Amino acid sequence: MRVSVIGATGYAGVELLRLLKNHPEAEVVHITSESQAGKPINEIYTHLNGLYEQELISMKEIDTIANDSDVVFIGLPHGHAMAVGKALVGKNVKIIDLGADYRFTDTSVYEQWYKVEHTHKDAQRVYGLAELYRDQIKTATIVGNAGCYTTASILALAPLAKKGLIELNTVVVDAKSGISGAGRSASLNTHFAEMYDNLKAYNVGGHRHTPEIEQALSEFSGEEVVISFTPHLIPMSRGILSTCYANLKKGVTAEAVDAAYQELYKDEYFVRLLGRGAYPQTKNTRGSNFCDLGWHIDERVGRVVVLSAIDNLVKGAAGQAIQNFNIVCGFEETTGLTNVPVYP
Amino acid sequence: MRVSVIGATGYAGVELLRLLKNHPEAEVVHITSESQAGKPINEIYTHLNGLYEQELISMKEIDTIANDSDVVFIGLPHGHAMAVGKALVGKNVKIIDLGADYRFTDTSVYEQWYKVEHTHKDAQRVYGLAELYRDQIKTATIVGNAGCYTTASILALAPLAKKGLIELNTVVVDAKSGISGAGRSASLNTHFAEMYDNLKAYNVGGHRHTPEIEQALSEFSGEEVVISFTPHLIPMSRGILSTCYANLKKGVTAEAVDAAYQELYKDEYFVRLLGRGAYPQTKNTRGSNFCDLGWHIDERVGRVVVLSAIDNLVKGAAGQAIQNFNIVCGFEETTGLTNVPVYP
Amino acid sequence: MRVSVIGATGYAGVELLRLLKNHPEAEVVHITSESQAGKPINEIYTHLNGLYEQELISMKEIDTIANDSDVVFIGLPHGHAMAVGKALVGKNVKIIDLGADYRFTDTSVYEQWYKVEHTHKDAQRVYGLAELYRDQIKTATIVGNAGCYTTASILALAPLAKKGLIELNTVVVDAKSGISGAGRSASLNTHFAEMYDNLKAYNVGGHRHTPEIEQALSEFSGEEVVISFTPHLIPMSRGILSTCYANLKKGVTAEAVDAAYQELYKDEYFVRLLGRGAYPQTKNTRGSNFCDLGWHIDERVGRVVVLSAIDNLVKGAAGQAIQNFNIVCGFEETTGLTNVPVYP
Amino acid sequence: MRVSVIGATGYAGVELLRLLKNHPEAEVVHITSESQAGKPINEIYTHLNGLYEQELISMKEIDTIANDSDVVFIGLPHGHAMAVGKALVGKNVKIIDLGADYRFTDTSVYEQWYKVEHTHKDAQRVYGLAELYRDQIKTATIVGNAGCYTTASILALAPLAKKGLIELNTVVVDAKSGISGAGRSASLNTHFAEMYDNLKAYNVGGHRHTPEIEQALSEFSGEEVVISFTPHLIPMSRGILSTCYANLKKGVTAEAVDAAYQELYKDEYFVRLLGRGAYPQTKNTRGSNFCDLGWHIDERVGRVVVLSAIDNLVKGAAGQAIQNFNIVCGFEETTGLTNVPVYP
Repeated sequence: MRVSVIGATGYAGVELLRLLKNHPEAEVVHITSESQAGKPINEIYTHLNGLYEQELISMKEIDTIANDSDVVFIGLPHGHAMAVGKALVGKNVKIIDLGADYRFTDTSVYEQWYKVEHTHKDAQRVYGLAELYRDQIKTATIVGNAGCYTTASILALAPLAKKGLIELNTVVVDAKSGISGAGRSASLNTHFAEMYDNLKAYNVGGHRHTPEIEQALSEFSGEEVVISFTPHLIPMSRGILSTCYANLKKGVTAEAVDAAYQELYKDEYFVRLLGRGAYPQTKNTRGSNFCDLGWHIDERVGRVVVLSAIDNLVKGAAGQAIQNFNIVCGFEETTGLTNVPVYP
Repeated sequence: MRVSVIGATGYAGVELLRLLKNHPEAEVVHITSESQAGKPINEIYTHLNGLYEQELISMKEIDTIANDSDVVFIGLPHGHAMAVGKALVGKNVKIIDLGADYRFTDTSVYEQWYKVEHTHKDAQRVYGLAELYRDQIKTATIVGNAGCYTTASILALAPLAKKGLIELNTVVVDAKSGISGAGRSASLNTHFAEMYDNLKAYNVGGHRHTPEIEQALSEFSGEEVVISFTPHLIPMSRGILSTCYANLKKGVTAEAVDAAYQELYKDEYFVRLLGRGAYPQTKNTRGSNFCDLGWHIDERVGRVVVLSAIDNLVKGAAGQAIQNFNIVCGFEETTGLTNVPVYP
Repeated sequence: MRVSVIGATGYAGVELLRLLKNHPEAEVVHITSESQAGKPINEIYTHLNGLYEQELISMKEIDTIANDSDVVFIGLPHGHAMAVGKALVGKNVKIIDLGADYRFTDTSVYEQWYKVEHTHKDAQRVYGLAELYRDQIKTATIVGNAGCYTTASILALAPLAKKGLIELNTVVVDAKSGISGAGRSASLNTHFAEMYDNLKAYNVGGHRHTPEIEQALSEFSGEEVVISFTPHLIPMSRGILSTCYANLKKGVTAEAVDAAYQELYKDEYFVRLLGRGAYPQTKNTRGSNFCDLGWHIDERVGRVVVLSAIDNLVKGAAGQAIQNFNIVCGFEETTGLTNVPVYP
Repeated sequence: MRVSVIGATGYAGVELLRLLKNHPEAEVVHITSESQAGKPINEIYTHLNGLYEQELISMKEIDTIANDSDVVFIGLPHGHAMAVGKALVGKNVKIIDLGADYRFTDTSVYEQWYKVEHTHKDAQRVYGLAELYRDQIKTATIVGNAGCYTTASILALAPLAKKGLIELNTVVVDAKSGISGAGRSASLNTHFAEMYDNLKAYNVGGHRHTPEIEQALSEFSGEEVVISFTPHLIPMSRGILSTCYANLKKGVTAEAVDAAYQELYKDEYFVRLLGRGAYPQTKNTRGSNFCDLGWHIDERVGRVVVLSAIDNLVKGAAGQAIQNFNIVCGFEETTGLTNVPVYP
């Protein structure tokens, strides 16, 4: 398949290039950047020397891109993918958007949290969290790739929500992310000396991944769910750990919890069930598309605590996009995604 | 005052030495280590060259220590301070124990969580969290210095518990600590290559600081409180951030929450109220005895989220011990503790 | 090819497993560990869950290993590979040793620096630095895989030594390594809190990679070369940067230096010539088998400064071993080694 | 003494504020910033909450500053201190400039390396490296505080240069610095995700600290010295390690080298001689004004290797400035600088 990457110079975009390089069914034809158009990508990312040396073009050349591509990945900031999506309507091109524009079934939720008008409300889109929306993804034209925090958190809580084992209004998600999640823009928030040996929360109660998690949990449970979600910046490069708390419904046993995880994920290659009492760690997933899950029953307080680790740039972005690409194209879902985590 | 440090070669012990060096009222007379007795301390910690070069002795020389000291700091693993405490009964020596042996009013709670028999149940001890137990500390003979996670967490929640603003059975404390909190012993858990660019939780539902937080919240509220407490290892050297969640009681306003923090802490030098909506960061406290607090009202879910940052080795250990020492001795409470955080 | 890894639980061994997983021509049949025999490898390295779950055996089962394997990789500490090498004499098994036992042409140099008797002096061995010893490796029975510091340093200096452009007795190599180079054993030297935000040199003038660099430079130049070599521990997980200084011979031009690099490496896939004035960085090679080179002419002082970056566990250990394996087996040299560096 | 800090919002400026806080003889009267004038300093650096909350003013108010201050510290980028220096001529104000403007005896060297015209050539200035220029500093009006790399490197090499023990034209200085040395401006070079787990050299042969080291070595030896100097960015916050190489002159013994260090530094509080064979580490100096020295004789190659560790923001900037301030004012030289390194 001929693929293009619109917005290739962000961390998610360049991670896509890494994974596509060894994907046996994909050939990268165009890569775009508005600010760096005309330059070869390896001038922007020197680790690509000898691997990718092609020139970045502007996405204004969308017609050329459409003609030359079977699938287009979009790695633009939210609010910018809709224009691409609309421009490609009627062309024979599938879209996998790594941003937020196509994640929401109810676009008014998007508009409320992202403070942007949604201009492509009638898009044939599907939420791109493969393990939980696989059947819809198979036939989608536009996949709204799930976010990074949300992937870790939804995979952690889905078995409990689907089986009705928890009080959904007690869900607290305390999530921690490496700093690559903040993107490549230079700022005090991403300054080495400021963040090294440092730790802080941000956007308490207001992070835009909150409604995305709520949408999924509501769909799984049939209830309208609201949750507490707190993201934190951790002084590391990659990785997300999501620590999820919920009250167990009365009478729910540890075995029922175990069974829920087994049932939903036992055949999933990318979800590794470490089991009850286990402690996932982000480094175990680095560079790979795995999501590692462990869960704990705290009987003293009647809560379940689920721990979920991913690489934010892989399962949380580019890897999941490739996984969706494989589904959309009818390839084996693990194609190009079988690399072993880079440890230590 | 002549002071000695029993167990001076752990990170808390050596941090005590750092702070005592510039304390105008303290003179360090003896320092002990069982495994390193006979060696000068600067051979174990070379950063002390030229500053502390005295020889470590064994704590078997407790009589000499008692004779020569007005106050003894204990930096031993839990279970070992009780013997020292008993040996010093009747001597004119005050004790500040940085471990857990003297933290619990109900020693059966200690025995249950620490799996050790408490052999000094009739000790005249006081819980050493200065801002909240100051009056008792003034006249104490033995101070059980509060733990690191617990200091951050209790200071965060005390105003809410004292004023009855939260549903105490909904408290979730998600705490994150730098790796110095795991001590100086070499293990896979503290191995650089294993923990760098890595993140994990541990001891979900079973960490020994849990009952210490519960003891304080129960005392403040008059209810028997149980909480969820989850510690995490963060790839940084120093610092704890405690993220505390609780449901607000019906009708509690943001202003009432603000007022609770102001009332309790407005005159406290070491508790810095960053205010509602603020984000404490651990680096802002590094090397200092400050605890920085910020709180957030998430009206959508009816919860308050309190963020609390400390340096685990200072306000979470040695600095708090000096603060307690100042109180016990009748010095100005900030004596020797006015250093500015080392930033960046 | 059926391959086995003797000493699979060190960082180099487990990195071999990572790379072998996606090598289309290799199948891992046995993996050994003396201390962990009987356990599945994924219990020791949990990132291998679902990828490698086979049981570690003891290398006492060398006959089984020999029967079942075409090639054996050895990841043992120095001094231990010789016994394996001798046990496999006459068996139809090729050996790639990642340790030092088979690196030296003159075994007395080995004995002098490693303080161990060499017990396999008549081995048919070849030095395993593929770009510079390729022809010999093709027909070797035992390959003594080049060391990590040495790979970076020799690749940096070889063009200059071969072309006679520098005063060889002025060579100073100042090398910096991430802490994974110190292995997985827990010690103060590898303790997170001790090494984080810290930096130091070690083994000045005495590091065992010194004679290995000298051997190569002497062979390339025909002179007996001695150099200054200083290794440093850097607070990062992976990567080596070697900064190499030498006086240029009188009259040597910048163009002559450029030409020497071009001539030797222009067709090498794994040596990326960033050019004169360029600054290689270790992260650009992370997880990959690349060696990035940049060089600088400082006319003011008459010296050339060469910068060389590798991933110590890949081009400095496991990747180079696979490269040698490919050569020995007659595969395309890049087989299994085309992954893109994991950045950031 | 009333002191002001012109350019207080850089890392060196704010480190000055940290150290001045506990200096018993100094009172900070004015602090300036052009871009942040009008804001309280604790809004820019939140770790200063409760410690410094005064308003930043513009340095256009130089007359007020001059009237109110006995000593002015300047923390401006090079090229900007000269205007301040000239404005203060004839006022009764001493100047300690942390930048480069007043470091050079021969201002044409400054102009050549810094590409800026020197507009205050007749300044009564002295080079501010206290251990080596103490007598001149005592009576100076303007002190050009030594640079960070230069302090570490000159202190390392001074005994050898003064005693004529090395071939000065063989000096190679390979220096490594934490990223705070690059300042607080956000850029790719200081971006966390780019520099974490990464390592690189920069400015080979062209770094502006080169002529500063050469100036000192030339003065000590009476020869015109040129050296190789290579700085590196290390993924840590603070600290410089300088690894210095030089050929020993024929017949120079290890004892002669030892004696040179002893003789020059035996009474220096801030220079800690760890001795021959010792390995200074940057963390041992963190937050303190110490420079730790170790040296090694490599007889095989006839070279001496000197290792020198400092905290770049203390002995390499603000601490040294306070030390110079103490000398200029006639205070005990260690006043306000006796804090213990913050370890770990």
